Amino acid sequence: MAETEHPRKAFGWAARDPSGLLSPFHFSRRETGEKDVAFKVLYCGICHSDLHFAKNEWGSSIYPLVPGHEIAGVVTEVGSKVVKFKVGDRVGVGCMVDSCHTCLNCVDNLENYCPQYTLTYSAKYRDGTITYGGFSDSMVVDEHFVIRIPDGLPLEAAAPLLCAGITVFSPLRYFALDKPGLNVGVVGLGGLGHMAVKFAKAFGAKVTVISTSPNKKEEAIQHLGADSFIISRDPDQMQAANGTLDGIIDTVSAVHPLLPLIGLLKSHGKLVVVGAPEKPLELSVISLILGRKIVAGSNIGGMKETQEMMDFAAEHNVKPDIEIIPIDYVNTAMERLLKADVKYRFVIDIGNTLKPSS
Amino acid sequence: MAETEHPRKAFGWAARDPSGLLSPFHFSRRETGEKDVAFKVLYCGICHSDLHFAKNEWGSSIYPLVPGHEIAGVVTEVGSKVVKFKVGDRVGVGCMVDSCHTCLNCVDNLENYCPQYTLTYSAKYRDGTITYGGFSDSMVVDEHFVIRIPDGLPLEAAAPLLCAGITVFSPLRYFALDKPGLNVGVVGLGGLGHMAVKFAKAFGAKVTVISTSPNKKEEAIQHLGADSFIISRDPDQMQAANGTLDGIIDTVSAVHPLLPLIGLLKSHGKLVVVGAPEKPLELSVISLILGRKIVAGSNIGGMKETQEMMDFAAEHNVKPDIEIIPIDYVNTAMERLLKADVKYRFVIDIGNTLKPSS
Repeated sequence: MAETEHPRKAFGWAARDPSGLLSPFHFSRRETGEKDVAFKVLYCGICHSDLHFAKNEWGSSIYPLVPGHEIAGVVTEVGSKVVKFKVGDRVGVGCMVDSCHTCLNCVDNLENYCPQYTLTYSAKYRDGTITYGGFSDSMVVDEHFVIRIPDGLPLEAAAPLLCAGITVFSPLRYFALDKPGLNVGVVGLGGLGHMAVKFAKAFGAKVTVISTSPNKKEEAIQHLGADSFIISRDPDQMQAANGTLDGIIDTVSAVHPLLPLIGLLKSHGKLVVVGAPEKPLELSVISLILGRKIVAGSNIGGMKETQEMMDFAAEHNVKPDIEIIPIDYVNTAMERLLKADVKYRFVIDIGNTLKPSS
Repeated sequence: MAETEHPRKAFGWAARDPSGLLSPFHFSRRETGEKDVAFKVLYCGICHSDLHFAKNEWGSSIYPLVPGHEIAGVVTEVGSKVVKFKVGDRVGVGCMVDSCHTCLNCVDNLENYCPQYTLTYSAKYRDGTITYGGFSDSMVVDEHFVIRIPDGLPLEAAAPLLCAGITVFSPLRYFALDKPGLNVGVVGLGGLGHMAVKFAKAFGAKVTVISTSPNKKEEAIQHLGADSFIISRDPDQMQAANGTLDGIIDTVSAVHPLLPLIGLLKSHGKLVVVGAPEKPLELSVISLILGRKIVAGSNIGGMKETQEMMDFAAEHNVKPDIEIIPIDYVNTAMERLLKADVKYRFVIDIGNTLKPSS
């Protein structure tokens, strides 16, 4: 099965139905428009949401579906009005490839909160054509949604920053948890959580990892550089840490109790949730009132801030821990991801392993 | 039954047991200490929490219990080290009469978030003696917890500002909802809600009242000055207002759904809950994530801010709507309060109606 609505041939791996199983897929991309950057994809991270989309677990999947929104590569062509990039530049694309450009959020560099922003895959451009993600050989994207990857940052490390990185960096900034000396908690130690630890440390915070898994303690402290570790199921440990944190980045997308986390906050502390459980969570309002505490959400980041995050990561040597895999391992990787069996992000070596089938 | 642990005789009305029924009560207050202000109580508002305390609904009541934490009167004596007040000054006391003075919150003028702050009644001072509230003829309070009532503000109007007023003023300020031109929602139109409308209007906001009661519309708009009114049970009205509010002050203490209120917020909007439902509420995390929205709590205000609120109210002529009652009407008033049958605050005329029994 091929898709040929555009003139430029493209090739990737796609899910065809809610089994989520990925297989080779020939499709097409648009010609490089005036403001477009075309680039050869070299690496693409695997985000948990790729799994949700591949299996249509959020109900909005458009098949065939080429996942991937942590995309890094090298520019091959630029449109006549492109000003920021030239052929050979190292670039990346994250979760968005378009937005309305006119709403207050867009004007305010918060395209990620534009009600009409266009997801990198399984969405429709304003002209009705379908978006396909980075599990593919090439991308063509409006330069506004393309990020420059600094020379010091390997492309394979840059890729996961475009979703996992910015998703935790943005709330640390917006909720003023980026000040040296603050006590910052991180709940969940997966792709997002491990980046939250690294960015919070880079900001100068004292970082506490809160996890259900005692066996993550050594890893969190020895390897990721966290300052302390709390087992969330241990009431004594939780009680001892009561009222100690200025803020928490909660990356857990399973249903979980908020009250113990709110208890860990100091007065005026902030619990920022970036994982989205399918069902509502229980909220004890009095626990917020008595300490003027906040529960908030945050969704990736705007393009300007994503570039700032990338530059910050390069400058402070903040890099994800990744496991590089060939494209033909992707279905196995998806299964392992479901079991949280990865430290901490799969990145597909697209450049060396994605070869067009006949 | 009398209580005589202190040398100064006092008289008020007290609840004796969880029936909550109030009756005359002779007790005592401490001599005026070095830093104390003694004052004759002239007016005291009735807050819904008085009802909870009288009936021990929060489990912490100490009987006999003299309620009242919206207290206004005139100074009769000051201690030798009192610097802010003199005999004859018009003063008030709100929900707190002491705090630790040393914690970070106290140092930061946020005594209301001091973990050891002392409630105006049904609590214990650090010396172990019991606090009694403003349903009584006199108060003796550390000057730090005494508020000056500006000349232009009637004492009976000032009283409810000390709890209902500051409870909504403080979050409007802290959450930056005090800027002219913002769209501010107020949920629930009781003692707190009607003050939220008035303060938000005084700050220059466009105010929307959100209520379950269609019959409050005319009152809200014609009398309180709200700009618009939404019936929360009308899906069409709620949908039409979707994404329009910068912030909401939610004063409802019954269990109620948060999701429709979160839907009313713009991106980056803030839902501040100041009423405390007994049970946890359901929180849809994704509704916060997609707009970087916040659910927060707020608890009264610090002493510095309470004075600012009082001065602001005098300057901008922000006054509660009150029904003045004699002390012997207090049990009936409590029953009416339970049915929300008051516009919008009962204030007891202590000065003219509280007469010591034998």
